[in-house]
Amino acid sequence: MDVLNFTGLHEECGVFGIYDHAGDTDVRAAVYSALYALQHRGQESCGIAVNCDGVISWHCDVGLVSDVLDKRELEALPDGAKMAVGHVRYATSGDRSRANAQPLVVQHCKGRMALCHNGNLTNAPQLRRKLELDGAIFHGTADTEVISYLVTRSRLATDSIEDAVSKTMEIIEGAYSLVIMSPGKLIAARDPNGFRPLCIGKLPDGGYVFASESCALDACGAELVRDVEPGEIVIADQSGLRSMREHCGKRPSSFCVFEFVYFARPDSIIEGGSVHEARKQAGRFLAEEHPAEADVVLGVPDSGIDAALGYSERSGIPYGVGFIKNKYIGRTFIQGTQQQRENSVRIKLNTISSTVKDRRVVLVDDSVVRGTTCARIIKLLRDAGAKEVHFRISAPPFKHPCYFGTDVPDRQHLIAVGRTPEEIAEIVGADSVGYLSVEHVRQLSPASACGYCTGCFTGEYPADTPEIRQENVWDKPVKNMI
Amino acid sequence: MDVLNFTGLHEECGVFGIYDHAGDTDVRAAVYSALYALQHRGQESCGIAVNCDGVISWHCDVGLVSDVLDKRELEALPDGAKMAVGHVRYATSGDRSRANAQPLVVQHCKGRMALCHNGNLTNAPQLRRKLELDGAIFHGTADTEVISYLVTRSRLATDSIEDAVSKTMEIIEGAYSLVIMSPGKLIAARDPNGFRPLCIGKLPDGGYVFASESCALDACGAELVRDVEPGEIVIADQSGLRSMREHCGKRPSSFCVFEFVYFARPDSIIEGGSVHEARKQAGRFLAEEHPAEADVVLGVPDSGIDAALGYSERSGIPYGVGFIKNKYIGRTFIQGTQQQRENSVRIKLNTISSTVKDRRVVLVDDSVVRGTTCARIIKLLRDAGAKEVHFRISAPPFKHPCYFGTDVPDRQHLIAVGRTPEEIAEIVGADSVGYLSVEHVRQLSPASACGYCTGCFTGEYPADTPEIRQENVWDKPVKNMI
Amino acid sequence: MDVLNFTGLHEECGVFGIYDHAGDTDVRAAVYSALYALQHRGQESCGIAVNCDGVISWHCDVGLVSDVLDKRELEALPDGAKMAVGHVRYATSGDRSRANAQPLVVQHCKGRMALCHNGNLTNAPQLRRKLELDGAIFHGTADTEVISYLVTRSRLATDSIEDAVSKTMEIIEGAYSLVIMSPGKLIAARDPNGFRPLCIGKLPDGGYVFASESCALDACGAELVRDVEPGEIVIADQSGLRSMREHCGKRPSSFCVFEFVYFARPDSIIEGGSVHEARKQAGRFLAEEHPAEADVVLGVPDSGIDAALGYSERSGIPYGVGFIKNKYIGRTFIQGTQQQRENSVRIKLNTISSTVKDRRVVLVDDSVVRGTTCARIIKLLRDAGAKEVHFRISAPPFKHPCYFGTDVPDRQHLIAVGRTPEEIAEIVGADSVGYLSVEHVRQLSPASACGYCTGCFTGEYPADTPEIRQENVWDKPVKNMI
Amino acid sequence: MDVLNFTGLHEECGVFGIYDHAGDTDVRAAVYSALYALQHRGQESCGIAVNCDGVISWHCDVGLVSDVLDKRELEALPDGAKMAVGHVRYATSGDRSRANAQPLVVQHCKGRMALCHNGNLTNAPQLRRKLELDGAIFHGTADTEVISYLVTRSRLATDSIEDAVSKTMEIIEGAYSLVIMSPGKLIAARDPNGFRPLCIGKLPDGGYVFASESCALDACGAELVRDVEPGEIVIADQSGLRSMREHCGKRPSSFCVFEFVYFARPDSIIEGGSVHEARKQAGRFLAEEHPAEADVVLGVPDSGIDAALGYSERSGIPYGVGFIKNKYIGRTFIQGTQQQRENSVRIKLNTISSTVKDRRVVLVDDSVVRGTTCARIIKLLRDAGAKEVHFRISAPPFKHPCYFGTDVPDRQHLIAVGRTPEEIAEIVGADSVGYLSVEHVRQLSPASACGYCTGCFTGEYPADTPEIRQENVWDKPVKNMI
Repeated sequence: MDVLNFTGLHEECGVFGIYDHAGDTDVRAAVYSALYALQHRGQESCGIAVNCDGVISWHCDVGLVSDVLDKRELEALPDGAKMAVGHVRYATSGDRSRANAQPLVVQHCKGRMALCHNGNLTNAPQLRRKLELDGAIFHGTADTEVISYLVTRSRLATDSIEDAVSKTMEIIEGAYSLVIMSPGKLIAARDPNGFRPLCIGKLPDGGYVFASESCALDACGAELVRDVEPGEIVIADQSGLRSMREHCGKRPSSFCVFEFVYFARPDSIIEGGSVHEARKQAGRFLAEEHPAEADVVLGVPDSGIDAALGYSERSGIPYGVGFIKNKYIGRTFIQGTQQQRENSVRIKLNTISSTVKDRRVVLVDDSVVRGTTCARIIKLLRDAGAKEVHFRISAPPFKHPCYFGTDVPDRQHLIAVGRTPEEIAEIVGADSVGYLSVEHVRQLSPASACGYCTGCFTGEYPADTPEIRQENVWDKPVKNMI
Repeated sequence: MDVLNFTGLHEECGVFGIYDHAGDTDVRAAVYSALYALQHRGQESCGIAVNCDGVISWHCDVGLVSDVLDKRELEALPDGAKMAVGHVRYATSGDRSRANAQPLVVQHCKGRMALCHNGNLTNAPQLRRKLELDGAIFHGTADTEVISYLVTRSRLATDSIEDAVSKTMEIIEGAYSLVIMSPGKLIAARDPNGFRPLCIGKLPDGGYVFASESCALDACGAELVRDVEPGEIVIADQSGLRSMREHCGKRPSSFCVFEFVYFARPDSIIEGGSVHEARKQAGRFLAEEHPAEADVVLGVPDSGIDAALGYSERSGIPYGVGFIKNKYIGRTFIQGTQQQRENSVRIKLNTISSTVKDRRVVLVDDSVVRGTTCARIIKLLRDAGAKEVHFRISAPPFKHPCYFGTDVPDRQHLIAVGRTPEEIAEIVGADSVGYLSVEHVRQLSPASACGYCTGCFTGEYPADTPEIRQENVWDKPVKNMI
Repeated sequence: MDVLNFTGLHEECGVFGIYDHAGDTDVRAAVYSALYALQHRGQESCGIAVNCDGVISWHCDVGLVSDVLDKRELEALPDGAKMAVGHVRYATSGDRSRANAQPLVVQHCKGRMALCHNGNLTNAPQLRRKLELDGAIFHGTADTEVISYLVTRSRLATDSIEDAVSKTMEIIEGAYSLVIMSPGKLIAARDPNGFRPLCIGKLPDGGYVFASESCALDACGAELVRDVEPGEIVIADQSGLRSMREHCGKRPSSFCVFEFVYFARPDSIIEGGSVHEARKQAGRFLAEEHPAEADVVLGVPDSGIDAALGYSERSGIPYGVGFIKNKYIGRTFIQGTQQQRENSVRIKLNTISSTVKDRRVVLVDDSVVRGTTCARIIKLLRDAGAKEVHFRISAPPFKHPCYFGTDVPDRQHLIAVGRTPEEIAEIVGADSVGYLSVEHVRQLSPASACGYCTGCFTGEYPADTPEIRQENVWDKPVKNMI
Repeated sequence: MDVLNFTGLHEECGVFGIYDHAGDTDVRAAVYSALYALQHRGQESCGIAVNCDGVISWHCDVGLVSDVLDKRELEALPDGAKMAVGHVRYATSGDRSRANAQPLVVQHCKGRMALCHNGNLTNAPQLRRKLELDGAIFHGTADTEVISYLVTRSRLATDSIEDAVSKTMEIIEGAYSLVIMSPGKLIAARDPNGFRPLCIGKLPDGGYVFASESCALDACGAELVRDVEPGEIVIADQSGLRSMREHCGKRPSSFCVFEFVYFARPDSIIEGGSVHEARKQAGRFLAEEHPAEADVVLGVPDSGIDAALGYSERSGIPYGVGFIKNKYIGRTFIQGTQQQRENSVRIKLNTISSTVKDRRVVLVDDSVVRGTTCARIIKLLRDAGAKEVHFRISAPPFKHPCYFGTDVPDRQHLIAVGRTPEEIAEIVGADSVGYLSVEHVRQLSPASACGYCTGCFTGEYPADTPEIRQENVWDKPVKNMI
């Protein structure tokens, strides 16, 4: 789906941090390269904070990395910093203000601090109200502000920033992968369920980096060491790398399987497994579960390519290139109204008729949310002369909300809710539709020892879901307090 | 000095608020017009917040009013609001981040709130540290964040927002003119000394506005009612206009006399007196104190024009137009390095040689800070053939820091520190230099009943000055807390 | 009228050229400074061309000098050039395309050439059609393209560029002040009537500059030598400055008197006379012709200030400051719809009520075109409490079209057409209206020996006017040639 | 090579025209969609001209289609036009000025005209000098200006625009695909050799379009009719579509084979053949000519993918996905210094290590120019653990200049000049290097009946090459004519 990037599943963030002990690296450039590599995890806003001898300078704005962190802005940040953090952010509609851009920088007499967060706290509203009644004020709506308060308040009563983070983790619930920069330390922390990815890399000259995905390590020349473990706090400081594991093992490991299927970049290694290989494996499983009599296997560019190769390999049906994606789409790629989205499929994607004409086609994609985009793509194939179109999806039907960091449309927009594959085939114009089974989705990455969250497919979640999510507490001021 | 606007005295802010009971006015347009009129009080950043049935939307950014509040941004704000506030801001160097832009909007379970502030708290560092140790976190460095915390915390323990403001005024010290918008009220408050101006206007159809200067009332079609009194809290709500006066009279009235001399717009009426008339009066006093044998009286455009007219009137020496200011300077006007400033005098200002050639000139300006700009202007006159240049300044020598809302250079940059008028004349290239006396500066506005702060001339201040101003507490994290 | 700059009279261009023999000057910076000083002559587009050892590089675009010729663009031009030309342009509506931006650069096997033109050819349509039928093609609609063809074609049959310019001057008719840069020469030429200004300046180290007004010489550090004479061709090349005078004296000298009244900058010296002094003189004449019983004389900022001073001096009525102009209007100043113009008077201009209240006011401005702006200004005075408003205009009534370089509205928009001063007074809301007489307007600059064109007041023109101006020949293709 | 798009081969233009007889289509939107689809043929500048009842309006600028033709600019063009043309342009360095942007619009008394051109005239310098000596002037350096003069001058002596085009084709030599819009006709013409592609499409409701490639027809909803034949002039006017064939057959058919190998979009059908199939066929031939013992076949994204599939199919070695291209590169993609290009490979491309590690790799790309990019890509593979890298290029070695519309680096930069494949392998770090043979390159598209130009491989050209190309005549003014 990513070619068109508008069907509704959105990762909410990418985080990054670097501590260059040797001081050889331009940490601003490293953040830039890393965020570029993580751009697929959030295109709304982005930001950087650098730490130069304990003084934190930063710049955030609405826009893509290449726009916000342009040459002029990067050079306006101080030279010679040894630490820096960065963030890319996807924002749900109505919440695109700068007030929520990250890194979130806190000025405090105990030291400045910059926070980057990927995830969703399930108890944020309650925590927020409690903090407010205790004298806190909020400027935006992001969970990160809640975390920044808890860390700050914990810090007043603890000896170190890492202890403050640990104390905060006792209070917050849900999904979070954090990178926090204090005047002297760079800290990474991951929720005990390990919903969202977070990994550790090593620079050639001895420094360390933390990133949502290993592709960011490649981009800034670091080597993957390992993932931050669920519940682990990792501290990079002058004396090297340390780990606090007191929250590890408190909860079942439940990594978001959609990171393998859809969100992560194929060149990333997550939980020890290659994302590209997992997607090829999904295609192989699909070929077993849902074979088709066909002449060619096509993938929707770019998201369905890997699984299409796996389907072709297992089924023996030749793999073909059926679509050309316009390389110059640039920013029109990113946003836009529903109307614009619909008109823009043809401008973004064209068929290669020699591949398709008079052929029976297996079309593979990684997900179907609303069904509108795949219906358009199937129509493109029909217009180009395809005799049959067998649509295969390398994930189970998407039917339930996610409370752990993915932004999904309301249930009424999900095509799979209340429909059989046959009904869906009719809606999208396919001759047949086949989804990957939940059992198989759990086996995509044999190298990965983690458990999975498959709540969006099954409705069964590995952690408490928010009871009062509907009650947007800060939109309801107490009446007599005007 | 304002033609070149870079010699060193800066007002720090302009504030504005509107409560349009009738709902006839587009409050967004009113804020735009008002901030345009107040732009001289701050050119770094500006912002607007509108209140539509209790929901506050806002937009702030770095830049001039015409850039930040362009058509697109204004129209993105909701239509039909009855209340709005706005702010223009000057920021000291190093502190130009968006984090300090105003209005400052607070999200809180007891209701949102937007704050606009002009002034300087003398006990802000102590309050800030105390709040931080009590669990508050700060994102910027402006005093407004301190005020927002105090109001919020007071609000938790009081019945109304105005009581919370009143409680806050018991705690904060220094100079402040505040406009605060809650879901249902618009509140103006002024410190008990009345350092900074703040006035009340009435809309033709019955609503109310608050503004730093009356020129903003003219711009949005409101009529001046009166100034907010020192220590007064004025509340506009559904039932009209009310006043709380419990802080009135607690301190001596001490209005910043530099507002009359330099900061305020000549068309404003402040403390009951016309700024333009006060400046003309300064010129008349100058002619008495420092007469000169001369052929023509010139004012430095635009800041010295009014006093030059007064000098001409009292002395009988004809008034002339000696300079042309380039009308298209636009934004290059605003910022720039010291180097650019120096090169840009010639491009901004040219002499009219027919006025100046072979003449003895009295040159009037409202202030001399570093002396570099007036030296350049005097050189322009010499180059144009002036035989003599007698430089007259419509204010006393500027020698001491201001702790109450004016940003001034360090003492070592002030030309008047440790120098006689004769020495200054030699430095700036004038045949003579004459300053207005402190006694006369207190008599500029006979219609005004207020007392004055003349601390920057005399070093005697009407309120406590900060003891620990040098200690920038939040730049010094406790060492063992990294 | 210039404060609001939208009543309808527009100069069409400003030209500039520099030949720095010594090579000490950064000619790019000199052009920038000069065009800044000439910006009042054209705000639509501007451009620069530099000549580095015979190779011409250039940059033009729509916008103000400070936007188009920003640091990046200037630095992209080659360093070390000894010659450069520049142009600012006003364009009539519908003709704002880049195709007409100047300097116009011609690539030709006989050498490149850059042309800058101020004026209006009265026989351009005929010349254009003739050239087209002879194989020329045009990309824009400006007369400059016609001139560039004629110079080029003449050049093929002559020995020098100056001879080609001279031959061209035998063909073209109307108003033109030209600056032309060839690989080795900088040439200035002025039509035999001398409609538009053009002067010669000398650099301290021996180079020469040509400019529409002397204020541009001041801006780039050159000294005024003299005006280019009507019909004169002045050549700056390696051997210094030469003059060709074969076209001099062919026509009556007829300088546009509106340059003195309105267009030129007051600090310019034109035809040997000070513009500022001429405007003051206009005020003195006005006081004689149209005295008034009044308490104060006000000028509309900035265009009426000079004449107001003259009126005050001659009448003995004190001069006062009645208006404050917003200094931050910036670009909103320049363009906009009729609607925006009307709404923007209040935002741009405010009265100083202490000057105006209960007073009888003489209001002086330099021109009235449509009458809408002065009506608004008079209303501002009434709203501020003026008892009487006597409106005095320092020029005769504007009633006829200009064919020689001024863009004026259609006759039906001119308030003076078919109306007595009394009728005009009623329309604009004044108690009386008085215009300067045509006799007096010819005597404004006693130091100037030139004759004047007063066609826009009298309808009598010193040269043939175009017969077929309405027939826009290039909009009517021969029908059978599609 | 296109992923990185900076190794040196550049198409020079894409052209498009539409005549919508029915008037149902928004021709502005059609041009936008078509130019978007043709963007790969030129990224420097672009433009559109629309014809509304004979009046031509246009907009061109430097930049990508999505930037230059944004909503505001498109809507500023008149609504309801039935004809429009568009152009995308690549410009050689030093020639990026707006003066060369197209469509080139000519204003002439015989009617306006807009020209779009793709190609290179081999006798342009001579024609240009001749025209100049005959009184023409040029503003830019593009051949299109030469063509516009010739058509205009021919038009003065002929009865119709198509006759003028035909006469012009008798004079100009080299490669050209033209789309010309007159007030009443849309004309397409192609040089007698047929070097550059140009095709005819039909709109559903009966109008016609002309485009460089058929992918532009798909983008605007037109159906491919056929190619314009070499030497053919096709006229769309009110009475439908007509053809003039008097220049057909004058020269040997010699289509640029690099269009199949590299320039054209894979989804285009050119000369009756699918570009995608031709590239797959190139891969099959390569597998026969240069087999390798390997574990996986990789294509350089996106340019080598098609040939890699063909290589895999013929060789039996599995096809794999070895690289991920960053989707958000946007504009940084387009331009930049050599330094930036080198640094940016890593940010644009990453390897998928699971595909590559410990494998013997066949790497396929479509061309090698300088060799620097492929060296970097091979290094990426080595760093990811590839045991062997066998580099296969789906075209013959590129050794000679192109005079017919391709911009190539100087010979000293071409890695294939004077080197054996073994030497090249050592330079780029490959274990072996294999190029496609010239015989095979002529057989890539069995469906195409055209002949080919293979001059860049063989040095033998199907038409005269320019003798005096080095002599840039307009840079050498006749000395005594300054």
